[in-house]
Amino acid sequence: MVGTIELDTATELIEAAEGKAEEIGVPSVIAVTNSEGNLIAQHRMDGAWLPSVNISRNKAYTAAGLEMPTHELAEASEPGESLYGLQTTDEGRIVIFGGGFPLERGGEIVGAIGSSGGQVDEDMEVARAGIDRFEELVE
Amino acid sequence: MVGTIELDTATELIEAAEGKAEEIGVPSVIAVTNSEGNLIAQHRMDGAWLPSVNISRNKAYTAAGLEMPTHELAEASEPGESLYGLQTTDEGRIVIFGGGFPLERGGEIVGAIGSSGGQVDEDMEVARAGIDRFEELVE
Amino acid sequence: MVGTIELDTATELIEAAEGKAEEIGVPSVIAVTNSEGNLIAQHRMDGAWLPSVNISRNKAYTAAGLEMPTHELAEASEPGESLYGLQTTDEGRIVIFGGGFPLERGGEIVGAIGSSGGQVDEDMEVARAGIDRFEELVE
Amino acid sequence: MVGTIELDTATELIEAAEGKAEEIGVPSVIAVTNSEGNLIAQHRMDGAWLPSVNISRNKAYTAAGLEMPTHELAEASEPGESLYGLQTTDEGRIVIFGGGFPLERGGEIVGAIGSSGGQVDEDMEVARAGIDRFEELVE
Repeated sequence: MVGTIELDTATELIEAAEGKAEEIGVPSVIAVTNSEGNLIAQHRMDGAWLPSVNISRNKAYTAAGLEMPTHELAEASEPGESLYGLQTTDEGRIVIFGGGFPLERGGEIVGAIGSSGGQVDEDMEVARAGIDRFEELVE
Repeated sequence: MVGTIELDTATELIEAAEGKAEEIGVPSVIAVTNSEGNLIAQHRMDGAWLPSVNISRNKAYTAAGLEMPTHELAEASEPGESLYGLQTTDEGRIVIFGGGFPLERGGEIVGAIGSSGGQVDEDMEVARAGIDRFEELVE
Repeated sequence: MVGTIELDTATELIEAAEGKAEEIGVPSVIAVTNSEGNLIAQHRMDGAWLPSVNISRNKAYTAAGLEMPTHELAEASEPGESLYGLQTTDEGRIVIFGGGFPLERGGEIVGAIGSSGGQVDEDMEVARAGIDRFEELVE
Repeated sequence: MVGTIELDTATELIEAAEGKAEEIGVPSVIAVTNSEGNLIAQHRMDGAWLPSVNISRNKAYTAAGLEMPTHELAEASEPGESLYGLQTTDEGRIVIFGGGFPLERGGEIVGAIGSSGGQVDEDMEVARAGIDRFEELVE
């Protein structure tokens, strides 16, 4: 089985993330993928940056594919570190800064969420609002 | 000015299209873009085909970019006809079968909707449910 | 030497083509390349289709690269003919319908012009207005 | 609504930038896009570097898409900084050094200009000549 989440769940997470994005005034693009990094749903909020369409999708792809939050990849990808150059290895889809998180249910990764549209800490905050909603749903 | 539609409108059209897709039993991916073919929102229904993620987005891109429904491109793109070869000219983004339609408001194209997941006539029916909803909204 | 044409010449050809496009009411994108198919100049007229940006550039690339007008490729690329499948061989840059023409000076191909935005015969007419201007200039 | 600028305006900006490029002896490629980063016009000056065709277009794309001059992205994209890795996230289209600037009219971003062909400070000077012309036009 490839872990996945339902469209209804995906749009609930996106709406929770949109609520946070509105609250902090950062128009964002939010993407949810299944555990293979393939898209379930994506919303571009009014006024969100165009490159954020690709970046949010790639953040979710990276978090799903490597099974970890994207911000944990930054340090290891710096010059001199073990994964230096990681971000150019997979047809440009690996994102090594924050805003992508895997979604876990019953100890298994079933998908990922990625947000882009502001500073990295803002993107992380927006994506985490989606994660929080997901944790409420799986309880 | 380049036309666009709001995220709220885009998700309403997608929901209308999803309703039709459920009714006819065809899990679909539905995408809405602005008039430059850039994504506003996209939903992959549970069980929808993976290639439909790209195909639905490209159908919307094509309908936005060429300002016409994608099914009108089929005949002219056949061997021996004037646009034979059209579908490979724009980085593989031109779709020449049905399921993509421009969205028009006040005589101006402001975006497009694309659906993929079933037979072409089914994709067209699903996308048209989104168009019908759009026409109610702009009235 | 790689044959090329000067930017001043390229923009003169484009302006001549734009004049024809206005006359026949077909907002077009017009591209001029050097003999290697690399861009010298490109203009997107107000209201011209978005996919025409890539298509016009690829028409000029094809005409420069294969040293012939793009409409001469259609027949040979049909199923059963010798070049069947040609249009997918070069990273999607080969266009096999009309609107791209090589630019020849002193028996040598020095560049190409491509136009996209209307029906194929309209694109050819627009591009030919650029060719006519070029022939006046090289006389 | 998504902003755009007219072809006549775009070519005026490019000509102003070309004037500056000639003055400082840096053959450049200059691109103007609409606010979605799609091309309106592009000129490659005689003798300008071939990679500058893509780089200038991507500078304009980046400035339009992220709504800021490209040189403001350099620092945050360095190893150890918050956006390290940014330049590889969006299909290689994000440029994080100077020479791309958004074009603003009435508080709204309607397009962007990008220049490439020399040192970064030269590219910025050339592009700024286009910006200066734009500001005269919108006054």
